[in-house]
Amino acid sequence: MGKITRYHLDPRTGVGFLLGRGEVLRVIDPEGEQVSDLVAFRRDDPTEWLSSGRSIDYNNTIYLTTGHMLYSNNSQPMLTILEDRVGKHDFLLTPCSQEMFRLLYNLEGYHPSCFGNLVTNLAQYGIAGHQIPTTFNIFMNVDVGPTGSLTIGPPLSRAGDFMELRAEQDLVVGVTACSAEKSNNNRFKPIDLEVYA
Amino acid sequence: MGKITRYHLDPRTGVGFLLGRGEVLRVIDPEGEQVSDLVAFRRDDPTEWLSSGRSIDYNNTIYLTTGHMLYSNNSQPMLTILEDRVGKHDFLLTPCSQEMFRLLYNLEGYHPSCFGNLVTNLAQYGIAGHQIPTTFNIFMNVDVGPTGSLTIGPPLSRAGDFMELRAEQDLVVGVTACSAEKSNNNRFKPIDLEVYA
Repeated sequence: MGKITRYHLDPRTGVGFLLGRGEVLRVIDPEGEQVSDLVAFRRDDPTEWLSSGRSIDYNNTIYLTTGHMLYSNNSQPMLTILEDRVGKHDFLLTPCSQEMFRLLYNLEGYHPSCFGNLVTNLAQYGIAGHQIPTTFNIFMNVDVGPTGSLTIGPPLSRAGDFMELRAEQDLVVGVTACSAEKSNNNRFKPIDLEVYA
Repeated sequence: MGKITRYHLDPRTGVGFLLGRGEVLRVIDPEGEQVSDLVAFRRDDPTEWLSSGRSIDYNNTIYLTTGHMLYSNNSQPMLTILEDRVGKHDFLLTPCSQEMFRLLYNLEGYHPSCFGNLVTNLAQYGIAGHQIPTTFNIFMNVDVGPTGSLTIGPPLSRAGDFMELRAEQDLVVGVTACSAEKSNNNRFKPIDLEVYA
């Protein structure tokens, strides 16, 4: 544990990179109230991918936080949440996409999106859009009402808050600074990443 | 609308079949308190698959019922719920699997599972296990508490209750009679299907 690699994600952008087993990824919200979508694939076999359904099932909660393990579709450990300074994140919703902006907000034409940014940045690892599952939406604040309806509120993250995740396998990881107005309290902000190798 | 095709699923089994655009699938719980996991793929391109994340997002609820549309990962309509005699179904959890029984219940050795039954019955359509996403778990009764924790109760379905879904594309569909003790109030029962073409 000596080397630190840093990535700065400008608002409404994304990045793809390799995260080795045992390495720790810190996802930082430098200004507060910004969401960061995360997805992961097994490096040597991307047919193994981060599974919201298995992670929710095995942890018996929709709100994953410190100490929880994130599992693959093959029920293998992928990432462990080592530290969480916020405590509220979403694992129900797919990343925002061009189609989402059209269907939910009647926006036609190009709109930057987490899905688009993940596709662009994961292509270098041979991962295509159809392989991107429900993302782990760090800092996204989603409540489930008694009838099952969802309410998206401003993230609870304040400037400098972060989450740390340890890779349990050699992974390909995609991370974004989210492009959805509603998820980020209507102001797009950057996301900072640090990888401790 | 003249032809009716029927499938009888013995307890802890599954089936795969083609469902044409406009055809209606009725999923029947003949004895009550039995869960049936459903998954769907676009027939001419199985890289398009039923997406829990997009369906939950676009309907803004975790509980899908009459009138709701189920979407693909590509944000296209796949199935419309025409009628729902129960009103409580799960779209958060992955199908039960050998690994789930090991991780959650310490069961070693073979245990029939929805995941295994889907893999077996979808192989004829060239669909592999790693392509199976979170299933739509019809009649499965999952509550989300205020802290996000999940409680699985007996299904609310009584003998003869059903859900009807219309295909919005030509689909490959997989359906099970669930193999998980906890989901079915500790007794395994059959599931009946009717396809109205």
